[in-house]
Amino acid sequence: MKGRIYTEDTPKKVGEKVRLIGWVESVRDHGKITFIDLRDRTGIVQCVAQGVDRISVESVVSIEGLVKKRPQNLVNEKISTGEVEIEVEKLEIVSKSDEMPFPLSTDGLEIDEGIRLKYRYLDLRRRRMAQNLRIRFKTLQFIRNWLEARGFVEIETPILTKTTPEGARDFLVPSRLQPGKFYALPQSPQQYKQLLMVAGFEKYFQIARCFRDEDPRADRAYGEFTQLDIEMSFVDQDDILELTEELFCDLVKDIFPNKRINKRPWPRVSHKEAMEKYGSDKPDLRENKNDPDELAFCWVVDFPLFNRQTKEDFFYGSGKSEWAPSHHMFTAPHPDDISLLDKDPGKVRGLQHDLVLNGFEVGGGSIRIHQSEIQSKVFDLIGFTEEQKREFEHMLTAFRYGVPPHGGIAPGIDRFLMVVLGEPSVREVMAFPMTSNGTTAVLDAPSVPDKRQLRELKIEVKC
Amino acid sequence: MKGRIYTEDTPKKVGEKVRLIGWVESVRDHGKITFIDLRDRTGIVQCVAQGVDRISVESVVSIEGLVKKRPQNLVNEKISTGEVEIEVEKLEIVSKSDEMPFPLSTDGLEIDEGIRLKYRYLDLRRRRMAQNLRIRFKTLQFIRNWLEARGFVEIETPILTKTTPEGARDFLVPSRLQPGKFYALPQSPQQYKQLLMVAGFEKYFQIARCFRDEDPRADRAYGEFTQLDIEMSFVDQDDILELTEELFCDLVKDIFPNKRINKRPWPRVSHKEAMEKYGSDKPDLRENKNDPDELAFCWVVDFPLFNRQTKEDFFYGSGKSEWAPSHHMFTAPHPDDISLLDKDPGKVRGLQHDLVLNGFEVGGGSIRIHQSEIQSKVFDLIGFTEEQKREFEHMLTAFRYGVPPHGGIAPGIDRFLMVVLGEPSVREVMAFPMTSNGTTAVLDAPSVPDKRQLRELKIEVKC
Repeated sequence: MKGRIYTEDTPKKVGEKVRLIGWVESVRDHGKITFIDLRDRTGIVQCVAQGVDRISVESVVSIEGLVKKRPQNLVNEKISTGEVEIEVEKLEIVSKSDEMPFPLSTDGLEIDEGIRLKYRYLDLRRRRMAQNLRIRFKTLQFIRNWLEARGFVEIETPILTKTTPEGARDFLVPSRLQPGKFYALPQSPQQYKQLLMVAGFEKYFQIARCFRDEDPRADRAYGEFTQLDIEMSFVDQDDILELTEELFCDLVKDIFPNKRINKRPWPRVSHKEAMEKYGSDKPDLRENKNDPDELAFCWVVDFPLFNRQTKEDFFYGSGKSEWAPSHHMFTAPHPDDISLLDKDPGKVRGLQHDLVLNGFEVGGGSIRIHQSEIQSKVFDLIGFTEEQKREFEHMLTAFRYGVPPHGGIAPGIDRFLMVVLGEPSVREVMAFPMTSNGTTAVLDAPSVPDKRQLRELKIEVKC
Repeated sequence: MKGRIYTEDTPKKVGEKVRLIGWVESVRDHGKITFIDLRDRTGIVQCVAQGVDRISVESVVSIEGLVKKRPQNLVNEKISTGEVEIEVEKLEIVSKSDEMPFPLSTDGLEIDEGIRLKYRYLDLRRRRMAQNLRIRFKTLQFIRNWLEARGFVEIETPILTKTTPEGARDFLVPSRLQPGKFYALPQSPQQYKQLLMVAGFEKYFQIARCFRDEDPRADRAYGEFTQLDIEMSFVDQDDILELTEELFCDLVKDIFPNKRINKRPWPRVSHKEAMEKYGSDKPDLRENKNDPDELAFCWVVDFPLFNRQTKEDFFYGSGKSEWAPSHHMFTAPHPDDISLLDKDPGKVRGLQHDLVLNGFEVGGGSIRIHQSEIQSKVFDLIGFTEEQKREFEHMLTAFRYGVPPHGGIAPGIDRFLMVVLGEPSVREVMAFPMTSNGTTAVLDAPSVPDKRQLRELKIEVKC
């Protein structure tokens, strides 16, 4: 719209005629005079109109009028345009709104989440939600620029790929070109990032979409989530921990200046100590749990490389054995414990590190195995059949062509933002999360496909 | 690795002892003396060793030695470290390499692509490929920062979603929680970005992964691709075209300074003129087709809103009718042609715009319909049944709550980079593209899943 200005610019235009366009946040009728709070992407401004017809809130209107300074006693200090108001000369309703299905003036947490997700495009008009998504973007921009300045390269890895067991259930995608076969959506870019280390990139990252078909929780969205995937060559565990600490401290300082990180360097707690002293592998080390601005990061290290296998492990990644990977099957054993792999696998420590924030696990990673023979031994210990091993043959092959020692970490973006923004659920920091039964927001998926589609894929539904 | 420096820093370290680590790019044995070109992520440097054992190329080695200035007549001007060499004092093989399956010193285009993709982690060591991925990252960083500076917000939309017909076949994902139902992977974030306009973000973008199960071509990868998805509220077509032109011109200037854009402002050609004058809806307007540095952007506009429907259209998006959307079903008719919708639909122009570069379509977009009644009419004209209409009920509903006029564009990142880098295929600018029969690079997917997984999903394979 030619000549349109944003509400945030109105205080600079006192005495001028302007054109604004946006949503009607509120309407207050005072007899002949109507007060309209007009909202656009930059904020709101008060408009004063005479003799206008009834306008429903959340309609889109175009307003032309004169910017006037308000008398000192009528300045609204709560908004950045509070010293001015617009004397409306022309008001046009661009798109009329029906009555809202729920109020937008509250934080929305009191409203049934199913309804909020059905009308997510209205729920996101809520100041808190719009702000959360803007902060999410700022956070990701900060991370990308910070890592670029340190020589990292973001590389996009495939979404249509092969299963990499990470302890969760895969989503499968039937192949039309190769009927009877399926792609898996990645639980993480684990194998690809390791292959990029073999390719010589040395410093890789990706804001990566990951997929796990596991039950949702407040701190875990159903279906998909976003992680900051970082992998580096020629590093030891300290290098990874130091880089991550520096990144998050700089990030908090820049994007969340009101937050206070309670300790630097971040405490490092062994898994054993965490369990014995705090009864949790994600201890909450805040000094004052009522302080919403306190951030207590800590590292948990020295995890056992293996846990006792459960039925779940067997189904989702391991073979049939006494042992399952505590982190995942690519985590390197502690170099001092290599000889224990044969004698006493349960005692082997893994070079795993978990990043904990205020009692939430917000990231995990490890130094990876980069020697074929150790990787083979781990495959044996977790009970891989020859057939299962063949599924990872390409990793063993890759390790034969000059492989750098490497490792990394993958902080969860949704969960980090949930904690730092003090939100009760990761869904409050996502644009269109699914409901807990796996139904998408707004759009009604999953749905029954056309029979012809299933025929083309050569699959049949059995229920 | 503590104390390690990168090869690019060696010219600043003349006379100092340094430690380097990287890959052996080449070895030349001259009797007792061996010349080793050592490569790391920053470049290469020549190392001179005495009395070392045979080293296979592409092994990872750690080298300690003295940085020495080369005599003037031995300076290698082709590399940035060409004025120095490293007198090796200690050489350790970190990871020995087997013989390469193909040479890395060429551009690789002469090698069978299946073999290159199987060993993609080696193929990406090739200078051209590593460079392409670095330029890809720089391009995306430039775009993100440029759009952020102009008030745009990047918002991630779901990958597990519902079909949005865009004229191609969907990938389907069976739901475990709702057996018999399927998610679709998005052909584009079309509906979500329009919903974000209804939500009031006004300026949205996303570097978005899109999925289409259609046959691969040189300029189209099988399975997935990346597009720069841009959507704006309160704009007309001119605003979108001008913003896009400014973005790409700034981008070329910054990231591809050797390239020359042959005309500004970019020519705008009507669809009719393009077909009549150039016989193509993506005309190649280069002045000299042998100039690899010439970039000829142009816009194609004034497309018909509808085409005659074919069987393909009917299957992948339309209903059964005479007409199919020329762009997609959300494209707005030209305001002057609204009355023709009833009388002569074939004559209605759509507010569609295609971005063409050197004869390739590198992007497309449109002003969208934002009125329920026009959207309904288009649904009718493309032959939607009541059931098909119900699948888009949420869009008609959203348009009832104060919707801004909006539109956008979605340049394809892979294809743009292919053209500007002069590559013969989009796969040359992607890290791990699929082969033409839909098999993933390195990892052998699609593959036959565990029977238990299919049972859980309640589907059966019929072939």
